[in-house]
Amino acid sequence: MRVVVLAGGLGGSRLARGLAETIDPTELTIVGNVGDDVEILGLHVSPDLDTILYTLTGRLDETKGWGRAGESWNALESVAELGGESWFRLGDLDLGVHLVRTEALRRDEPLSAVTARIARAFGFEPALLPATDERVRTWLATPAGELPFQEWFVARRHRDEVEGVRFEGADDARPAPGLLESLETADLIAIAPSNPFVSIGPILAVAGIREALEARSVPAVAVSPLIAGKAVRGPAARMLARLGGGTGPQQVTDCYKDLIDALVIDEADADEETAIRTIVTRTLMDDADGRRRVAEAVLESAAALR
Amino acid sequence: MRVVVLAGGLGGSRLARGLAETIDPTELTIVGNVGDDVEILGLHVSPDLDTILYTLTGRLDETKGWGRAGESWNALESVAELGGESWFRLGDLDLGVHLVRTEALRRDEPLSAVTARIARAFGFEPALLPATDERVRTWLATPAGELPFQEWFVARRHRDEVEGVRFEGADDARPAPGLLESLETADLIAIAPSNPFVSIGPILAVAGIREALEARSVPAVAVSPLIAGKAVRGPAARMLARLGGGTGPQQVTDCYKDLIDALVIDEADADEETAIRTIVTRTLMDDADGRRRVAEAVLESAAALR
Repeated sequence: MRVVVLAGGLGGSRLARGLAETIDPTELTIVGNVGDDVEILGLHVSPDLDTILYTLTGRLDETKGWGRAGESWNALESVAELGGESWFRLGDLDLGVHLVRTEALRRDEPLSAVTARIARAFGFEPALLPATDERVRTWLATPAGELPFQEWFVARRHRDEVEGVRFEGADDARPAPGLLESLETADLIAIAPSNPFVSIGPILAVAGIREALEARSVPAVAVSPLIAGKAVRGPAARMLARLGGGTGPQQVTDCYKDLIDALVIDEADADEETAIRTIVTRTLMDDADGRRRVAEAVLESAAALR
Repeated sequence: MRVVVLAGGLGGSRLARGLAETIDPTELTIVGNVGDDVEILGLHVSPDLDTILYTLTGRLDETKGWGRAGESWNALESVAELGGESWFRLGDLDLGVHLVRTEALRRDEPLSAVTARIARAFGFEPALLPATDERVRTWLATPAGELPFQEWFVARRHRDEVEGVRFEGADDARPAPGLLESLETADLIAIAPSNPFVSIGPILAVAGIREALEARSVPAVAVSPLIAGKAVRGPAARMLARLGGGTGPQQVTDCYKDLIDALVIDEADADEETAIRTIVTRTLMDDADGRRRVAEAVLESAAALR
């Protein structure tokens, strides 16, 4: 059972982990968002790829939902003392990854190659592909002007209403090597319960990826990131209300028009009307049981659709 | 009393600290070696400037004689886990400094400017000038081939016999802004008890600095880095034996031909013959008393010479 899952940060990595714990992990390909990538202190940071790497190898700080377990903050404290950029929280263990990645990118190693190298060193078994090796950056149109993703999300704590989303570079970016082949040879394509606009959106915006999904010959299933109209964390509900006109399963489905055949929704949303096949389960993935439950719902829905 | 001191790493920073604790620190200019500077993991590291900054502001790990007090090593551990370069020991607090400096250099801020900024942020009172803002790198000719300084010093623990020293870039480098003016307006020029070949040598090799010292109109005094033919730490004695023909005060004096008017030596060397005026004291600077004693010997010798 070969599965490809498109994933953003925490929700994406939790579903990916659930899948990796349910099927043969070497049959799983995770396509990670790079629209959040950011240059901080001269380092290339790929927050979503790292959250996936950390989550699936037990390195994530599960309480915070980002960063490394057992992290220390001395480098950033030292940077702050010198008046350097310290708004983006880079821990010491985390910094090691950014140093290695940045050094590799500067030597013209592609992001996909250094990601694979880091994954191997961490004992990470699935394939992890960035959506693209090229530069794609998410920008948010807000009443305060157009903001780069991390400035909006971290520095301003996503307080600005989002009026539109733009993916700089996506039109000219090519999918990472092997990505389209993974989609072609998959038995199932899953879209994780990540923010449709800023986590999945930048993946779909890479030239060729949306088209490959539209042309799929196998089932595709998304997991709704909302439970009773609320996001587990982050601004997904607010964005869906504003940009999608509501926070129900139908609005999630509309985000993935022509791209999915079914939507996994939470029991709390079972009575909502949705013009697509829905699979109902408890979608909260705050432990191993939850991850497995949602992964199984995804896998079973695919079997039913085939 | 305006004093300029040429300094390498630990010995240099201890004399500089002693001087800063004895005279008005704002009257002190420290000229730091940059021949040891090295690019590690894409970061520009200036070990001698940092040792000076850390020593004079109480941030040095006095037990190790390098790096920061209270340091942690998580970033480097993470780098090592990923197979990255970890032979050069970069601690987490230390890394913060390298990140800020590297980011500044990449924006074309001169090394002297970012050094002054870091010094201010650390509450460092003297002026600290790198010998030059340009790239100078020390290379050692050894039986194992010509080695860059840090590869010889750190990676190979200076076990290779040194047959010659070369300062790449020094002929074309200009002294840092203000450096020649400091020498011209000084009341005293001091050469710290640093390795004459690899700590003071790269400073003197920068075009114009040796000439300015030769043309001085004020006293210049060096402190011998050797006590009874032995270095407090590091390879100075072995290098002096090999490249200078001995380990006595005369060989130290020969390293600074035409550049000094007196040499501060340890009591253990009081009976050695030396063709220059010597000032005898205990030159070990392992505490505040020791630093002050050597600083006072330097200052008094200058008064006697004037």
